[in-house]
Amino acid sequence: MKFVTFELEGAAKPGLWLDHGILDIGRVVPSAERILFSSVLSIIANSDRTIGILKQVLDGPSFPQGALIDASRCHLLAPIPRPAKNVFCVGRNYMEHVTEGYSAQGIEIKLPQHPQFFTKPPTAVVGPDTEIPFQPDVMEQLDYEVELAVIIGKTGRNIAPGDALDHIFGYSIINDLTARDLQRRHDQWFKGKGLDFSCPFGPWIVHRDEISDPQKLPIRLSVNGERRQESTTAQMIFDLPRIIADLSRGMTLEAGDIIATGTPSGVGYARQPPSFLVPGDVVQCEIGGIGVLTNRIAAPNMS
Amino acid sequence: MKFVTFELEGAAKPGLWLDHGILDIGRVVPSAERILFSSVLSIIANSDRTIGILKQVLDGPSFPQGALIDASRCHLLAPIPRPAKNVFCVGRNYMEHVTEGYSAQGIEIKLPQHPQFFTKPPTAVVGPDTEIPFQPDVMEQLDYEVELAVIIGKTGRNIAPGDALDHIFGYSIINDLTARDLQRRHDQWFKGKGLDFSCPFGPWIVHRDEISDPQKLPIRLSVNGERRQESTTAQMIFDLPRIIADLSRGMTLEAGDIIATGTPSGVGYARQPPSFLVPGDVVQCEIGGIGVLTNRIAAPNMS
Repeated sequence: MKFVTFELEGAAKPGLWLDHGILDIGRVVPSAERILFSSVLSIIANSDRTIGILKQVLDGPSFPQGALIDASRCHLLAPIPRPAKNVFCVGRNYMEHVTEGYSAQGIEIKLPQHPQFFTKPPTAVVGPDTEIPFQPDVMEQLDYEVELAVIIGKTGRNIAPGDALDHIFGYSIINDLTARDLQRRHDQWFKGKGLDFSCPFGPWIVHRDEISDPQKLPIRLSVNGERRQESTTAQMIFDLPRIIADLSRGMTLEAGDIIATGTPSGVGYARQPPSFLVPGDVVQCEIGGIGVLTNRIAAPNMS
Repeated sequence: MKFVTFELEGAAKPGLWLDHGILDIGRVVPSAERILFSSVLSIIANSDRTIGILKQVLDGPSFPQGALIDASRCHLLAPIPRPAKNVFCVGRNYMEHVTEGYSAQGIEIKLPQHPQFFTKPPTAVVGPDTEIPFQPDVMEQLDYEVELAVIIGKTGRNIAPGDALDHIFGYSIINDLTARDLQRRHDQWFKGKGLDFSCPFGPWIVHRDEISDPQKLPIRLSVNGERRQESTTAQMIFDLPRIIADLSRGMTLEAGDIIATGTPSGVGYARQPPSFLVPGDVVQCEIGGIGVLTNRIAAPNMS
């Protein structure tokens, strides 16, 4: 199942992305249970119950008239348009990206022994195909980072690595857009990572049942069709069980929480010469088994 | 006005802390407007309207029976028990704290040229008098940091320094509890700053009308009655207008957002020898014109 939030006639609704259209979930679930399905966040928080009901719906007879909507009639928001807290992010989690980062700065390579965590605020989240306004008054060096996003389905604390995958609801894609100049200027990474529009997220959340091994997914990014990042999630330094275990040590992870798990090599600032995003650029993030997340950088006067 | 969230018979309600008790706001505002007063967060988000109504209530005749509650009958939660995003924090913002930090690490002193921002998740927030469980399985070096908290009242982006104070709803106190070992181990500060119970907040939000100059407030912290931190908000390297201007550059600050503005010198890890919090310690944070925030570190078996 691919969970989307779609906007139709001004209202944001949860849906399932199917081959032949978007299924309006509110139209196909029993009315007594509809409150559980008010949003993708609510579906996740109640997944013990909601997933079973949705499977029955999909296995059942044809949908009621009007429940299946032509995708061209609506547009997708981020699957969770407004997370209930900041998005958790992991820095320096692919070997070659760590290497390129130190090389670009001309300093000795040092692999992290523990994951580095930072966050992006809910105000940064935007959906697929949303235009990203370029803000030359705020920053100059806009860079891309394709990342596998993990969505937590079961609340927990001090989660053991062996239990971690049980706490995952599903997977998605995040482009961890970064203002490199601000990231450096403010020392801690939050400022350079937290701008409005800096967290494209989507196009949907794929339920974990459809991803047999999240550490074997091809991950790539292109700018205007030119391949810039290409790797596999097998190259993570800290795998998902380790990330979830470390992050949840002493800190409760809640259903609906989102974790961006780091980016492979090929980012713009490490290229020779460095190459940053400019208005008109189209950035495509792709992860095998999930899909493609596309966003265009817009001219300042379009913001 | 001092805004509190108090718990009475299992329900969390917004109130005003008065000399002779807690005023149950829901009992004294016009019923047609009551929806605006459903929580402190809602009162802040609608402050254009709510503050005027509350002033009328306070200036009016006596309160209806039962609206004024004896403080001993209820307990205070954090004034915003569940923020809608992570708490923004500023690091290294008092000159002497920067100095003591570098000295403790034996490295050259370097003053920040730009504020350093990081965050604490909503799950970290606890109220006054809440016991903080000591978690020896998670961390060893628990440290305190008293900070002036600013609560944003008016949403804005690219806020000019000259307009910044207009965006403030009020002020409170945060103890930015920090696991120093985790802060160092994970490089970025989030992990060491984000544990459950690590953000004591309160006891109330003082409306800005009662604070004539937020840069002239005495700020201090004691452990078991022994003074550990003592300074004034005049010693901030980056003042509130600068913090709000820098943080909101390219990033929308929303009504209800909370900013912890840095701590003065005297933290435990910089003492000779270093001195961390242990079970049984009582930490009192005090800021002139606001009040006192007290929390006790509890033994592990009480968590």
